[in-house]
Amino acid sequence: MTTTRADGRAADQLRPVSLTRNWLDHAEGSVLVEFGSTRVLVAASVTEGVPRWRRGSGLGWVTAEYEMLPRATHTRSDRESRKGRVGGRTHEISRLIGRALRGVIDYQALGENTIVIDCDVLQADGGTRTAAITGAYVALADAVAWLRARGALAGEPLRGSVAAISVGVVNGTPVLDLPYVEDSAAEVDMNVVCTGDGRLVEVQGTAEGEPFDRALLDQLLDLAQAGCAELTRLQAEALAG
Amino acid sequence: MTTTRADGRAADQLRPVSLTRNWLDHAEGSVLVEFGSTRVLVAASVTEGVPRWRRGSGLGWVTAEYEMLPRATHTRSDRESRKGRVGGRTHEISRLIGRALRGVIDYQALGENTIVIDCDVLQADGGTRTAAITGAYVALADAVAWLRARGALAGEPLRGSVAAISVGVVNGTPVLDLPYVEDSAAEVDMNVVCTGDGRLVEVQGTAEGEPFDRALLDQLLDLAQAGCAELTRLQAEALAG
Amino acid sequence: MTTTRADGRAADQLRPVSLTRNWLDHAEGSVLVEFGSTRVLVAASVTEGVPRWRRGSGLGWVTAEYEMLPRATHTRSDRESRKGRVGGRTHEISRLIGRALRGVIDYQALGENTIVIDCDVLQADGGTRTAAITGAYVALADAVAWLRARGALAGEPLRGSVAAISVGVVNGTPVLDLPYVEDSAAEVDMNVVCTGDGRLVEVQGTAEGEPFDRALLDQLLDLAQAGCAELTRLQAEALAG
Amino acid sequence: MTTTRADGRAADQLRPVSLTRNWLDHAEGSVLVEFGSTRVLVAASVTEGVPRWRRGSGLGWVTAEYEMLPRATHTRSDRESRKGRVGGRTHEISRLIGRALRGVIDYQALGENTIVIDCDVLQADGGTRTAAITGAYVALADAVAWLRARGALAGEPLRGSVAAISVGVVNGTPVLDLPYVEDSAAEVDMNVVCTGDGRLVEVQGTAEGEPFDRALLDQLLDLAQAGCAELTRLQAEALAG
Amino acid sequence: MTTTRADGRAADQLRPVSLTRNWLDHAEGSVLVEFGSTRVLVAASVTEGVPRWRRGSGLGWVTAEYEMLPRATHTRSDRESRKGRVGGRTHEISRLIGRALRGVIDYQALGENTIVIDCDVLQADGGTRTAAITGAYVALADAVAWLRARGALAGEPLRGSVAAISVGVVNGTPVLDLPYVEDSAAEVDMNVVCTGDGRLVEVQGTAEGEPFDRALLDQLLDLAQAGCAELTRLQAEALAG
Amino acid sequence: MTTTRADGRAADQLRPVSLTRNWLDHAEGSVLVEFGSTRVLVAASVTEGVPRWRRGSGLGWVTAEYEMLPRATHTRSDRESRKGRVGGRTHEISRLIGRALRGVIDYQALGENTIVIDCDVLQADGGTRTAAITGAYVALADAVAWLRARGALAGEPLRGSVAAISVGVVNGTPVLDLPYVEDSAAEVDMNVVCTGDGRLVEVQGTAEGEPFDRALLDQLLDLAQAGCAELTRLQAEALAG
Repeated sequence: MTTTRADGRAADQLRPVSLTRNWLDHAEGSVLVEFGSTRVLVAASVTEGVPRWRRGSGLGWVTAEYEMLPRATHTRSDRESRKGRVGGRTHEISRLIGRALRGVIDYQALGENTIVIDCDVLQADGGTRTAAITGAYVALADAVAWLRARGALAGEPLRGSVAAISVGVVNGTPVLDLPYVEDSAAEVDMNVVCTGDGRLVEVQGTAEGEPFDRALLDQLLDLAQAGCAELTRLQAEALAG
Repeated sequence: MTTTRADGRAADQLRPVSLTRNWLDHAEGSVLVEFGSTRVLVAASVTEGVPRWRRGSGLGWVTAEYEMLPRATHTRSDRESRKGRVGGRTHEISRLIGRALRGVIDYQALGENTIVIDCDVLQADGGTRTAAITGAYVALADAVAWLRARGALAGEPLRGSVAAISVGVVNGTPVLDLPYVEDSAAEVDMNVVCTGDGRLVEVQGTAEGEPFDRALLDQLLDLAQAGCAELTRLQAEALAG
Repeated sequence: MTTTRADGRAADQLRPVSLTRNWLDHAEGSVLVEFGSTRVLVAASVTEGVPRWRRGSGLGWVTAEYEMLPRATHTRSDRESRKGRVGGRTHEISRLIGRALRGVIDYQALGENTIVIDCDVLQADGGTRTAAITGAYVALADAVAWLRARGALAGEPLRGSVAAISVGVVNGTPVLDLPYVEDSAAEVDMNVVCTGDGRLVEVQGTAEGEPFDRALLDQLLDLAQAGCAELTRLQAEALAG
Repeated sequence: MTTTRADGRAADQLRPVSLTRNWLDHAEGSVLVEFGSTRVLVAASVTEGVPRWRRGSGLGWVTAEYEMLPRATHTRSDRESRKGRVGGRTHEISRLIGRALRGVIDYQALGENTIVIDCDVLQADGGTRTAAITGAYVALADAVAWLRARGALAGEPLRGSVAAISVGVVNGTPVLDLPYVEDSAAEVDMNVVCTGDGRLVEVQGTAEGEPFDRALLDQLLDLAQAGCAELTRLQAEALAG
Repeated sequence: MTTTRADGRAADQLRPVSLTRNWLDHAEGSVLVEFGSTRVLVAASVTEGVPRWRRGSGLGWVTAEYEMLPRATHTRSDRESRKGRVGGRTHEISRLIGRALRGVIDYQALGENTIVIDCDVLQADGGTRTAAITGAYVALADAVAWLRARGALAGEPLRGSVAAISVGVVNGTPVLDLPYVEDSAAEVDMNVVCTGDGRLVEVQGTAEGEPFDRALLDQLLDLAQAGCAELTRLQAEALAG
Repeated sequence: MTTTRADGRAADQLRPVSLTRNWLDHAEGSVLVEFGSTRVLVAASVTEGVPRWRRGSGLGWVTAEYEMLPRATHTRSDRESRKGRVGGRTHEISRLIGRALRGVIDYQALGENTIVIDCDVLQADGGTRTAAITGAYVALADAVAWLRARGALAGEPLRGSVAAISVGVVNGTPVLDLPYVEDSAAEVDMNVVCTGDGRLVEVQGTAEGEPFDRALLDQLLDLAQAGCAELTRLQAEALAG
């Protein structure tokens, strides 16, 4: 598969991906994840106990919050804290990350512990939510290891790994891992979350211009699943490192 | 295709759908849409002019807001107005409805007019977002007709129709148009937005339990596209009525 | 008493009133109340227990919330949830409805149960607060019956019935039950809440233009009490139905 | 008329009333108004121009805001600024004060000027809203005089004066000007706003316990109108001082 | 030290200071403090118990809130309650007052009691935070006396007294206790909080124009410490009165 | 001067300081500043034009916002955006940074341009506000250079440089640049902002335990001014790099 992309990549090629573990001193798990120029700081915070509505169930809880620094983008955005409200996009992505991680968690094995995953975008160049999910899995794994080392687990809470990538149609061609310049021109835009064994956790595809057909959807899913497989390999490498 | 569903429907069968136009006296378009016990009041409000950031572009604007009445559900929820903030789910669905409608709008033809679509869920029994989108298209069409009758359009702003339906896997079986009882037990949950000619505008699939594979995704999309085709027929009927 | 009103009614005549019980499937009591084109959906929600400050008192609690859908009116209003705050008018009417209902409640007999009355204006054409109170009593009665059927009451919590109507001076003439077109032109505007036995629970009269004298106040109160008597009859009919 | 009141007053007797003009150095009008221990600081602020929606109309605008200091009452209340929202009671009283003052204003004569009346309760012992209105009229008159002295008026904006008083039924007896100890035990509670010539601007009566009949309403209105007449005299005295 | 100040004071001279105790009937301690035209109402509210995070510690808690009435200043400011958020300046001064008072409190001796100090600026003419602190100490002492009289103390919670004053450089000359006209023209602006025995609790100096050197800092601190000594004397006088 | 500090530093020694310019791709100026484990990302954003209240003045504007990521600290804090309000500490530090930078800005020379400085604490280990100011000056200088390169300046807007450092008394000894472990145990805590030529822009000293005297204040200022001189050298080095 070949195409002419602004950054010279092949259509099915990821940007350079980097997963730097333990970027923070205090967090039980932390990763600086980079997909090209997109840079997200992920912190996993463990607390004993679960929210009130879950107490006494014996089950754990995992949740996520996503936010962008005001100058992560080309022009500065106002802070949501100053506006006094969290925007729809921020809510939506936070919920997506949480669902993706919960998709591979065994609550019983986690026991009554809570893990909060904070994903703060330091620099945005497309794919911030997929970078966040991919990094969040690694931070989550480290937080789980931290709990395991303290003997605080009832079993193995990770039923598998999870990674995410964006795909889209740019100038009529399906491409993988879109930077901002492609994302803003894409006719179709899709985010796909896969488990390490190649199954789907979440598929979110949107026609930005023309509606799309099933054949195109299939091409995009092929690209995405291959991309996620590569990310799975990089996650394993990072965790082995 | 057969299965045993609580309400006796076949797996590929819609609930009774009703689209009552002009349910309100003042709105330029309005529909009470019902998918079984789910009941959404949709109002389309036309105003001359567009938001500040779009002025002078010659282009129109379409946006949507979704909200649930506090006792739409089995147990009462607090009002978002009283909590002083709009929740993530509300934001997310509002954005989905807006994107779905904008997928069939020609802004040039709409001219510098704004149409706001309010979708208020009077009673919720699963599928509120898909009922909202399906009803919203009809209200939008009436609002466009209202503009046309006043000579306020530069062309035909509707490039097609749009409808939406939920599909999911319940007890291992793919089913169409899930009521609350099925939705809360679904292993996979997907919302699909199609145009009247059968193409896809939005696909949002989530594994609630086990991750899913491509074969299952295909089955669900088949169900959804057939369901949307039936909704397209009912929309046309309502608009002809 | 005769006058020329836009809708042909006599000065002392109510608009067509309709009280449709059980409009919702889930609520313990629900009514769609219509005063002419004014249409309010009332839901009564029962929960066991009372707010923290009332626990252990043996007394129940009844409260109400009122809100308008954005396109209930001739032109669209912004949602209070999106503005992040509840407006003064909304608060004021919510409080009025709550006081009106509490005026006929015996808390001892209700026991430690809470009933929340939600009044959502689907369409507004004047008199939304009086329609809400009139409908709310019926929904409240159904919620009480629901509690009674479950043996959850310590006695009879309803000490009587309650209804409300607007009166005002339009073009110098006192009239009953003002639609929007009259309300916006009224020189004096009054809302009166009566019990079923004809006594007063709340009187709120405001000079919109000229201050008024006691003689005029008396005329308005006569009109209102007669109107409430008629509404009391309609409530009884609905509850018997 | 006699009765035994805790503070020894006759049933139809006001508490000691004091109206101290120019309590502030900067405000165009200001009054410290006292009804017994109730103490409200009223400031009238004049600004040239009117809100956007009124520009070019040639008409002025008068509005009011009411608030209580946290320790105005027996036990401390949280600040509404810290809670991030203005309560229903605060909104309701602010609106009442505004309506009362607008009832005697000729907007044409005021010209495109805005007067904002701030009523801050320094100490509360019942009747804060009626003290606020009574004081606010005096501050308003001073602000109007300030405008007149600068030649900024198109005529005489004050069409009359306005004052307010509470009445209620305590231990079965109708009484005037209730302090907190009576107010909290009142069976009926009414606030009445009168013009200087004895007509009614606003009547707000509420049954706190038993509903009330027309005869009792008449007694209360008699008391209130006599009380307002006395307040009118005290306002004139203060303004002459 | 001599200079020409608008109000004729010497450079090292305070404005007339007045501390009126028991200005409120309900508060456990209250003071109307005046520094020239600056007028702050301080109320100290005692409640049994401490915030949740301090329970069972045997230690008390003291906190403060500062706010300005909208027309305390030359032109009206919007209320923070209406804006729905507390401004940075308000927060900052509230925190300063709290720290200043906590600097002389022995929590052990206070026992598990909370004292909240409300400082509401009725009129502002410079130095509102220093007047607030100076008055707050007196109200605090009265609240402590109230606790002592009820036998609710474990010892003597006041380890000393505290007072505060502003100093600054105006037209090149260091001056004490700046009114608004000087404050707004000051090149350097400093607030100093001292204990009764002359030591420093807080020093906050800011260059509004040119940065300043150590020699000037020393001159300003000399002025401030002398001013605080005089305020300490006035506080003692008031508390003896 | 010697002492035993947990990290082995001398009492008058800074932690390792690092100033990494251009850490972000989009911002007109950006610095990752590190004081030991404290890590703050500073972004300077330039926009043409100034806030409404300053338009037409020919003067520029510089402002700053400070915020902490939720897991910058040992235990996770809730996001201010989710709480819907910015806390007092955040406001206070944002204002301090803004004042510090404005202390060396010539608005006339800046022309009608605005520079917003965002300081986001990625990891906190004491001294976040002083690190932020020290880094912010470097980002500001880069933003000014960016404006100069585009010919958008009316002169040289930087009248000097600015840096900041904390000093305090720990175990009775005055020390420079306190990490969290020292800061939380300090008896006196002071932040000092100096210009590059050694003068003072801001002095904020607080007795956390015992009040302090002038002699101690002098010792602390000596330490701070020496520390700032070293930071000034490091800033110059970074900008030359």
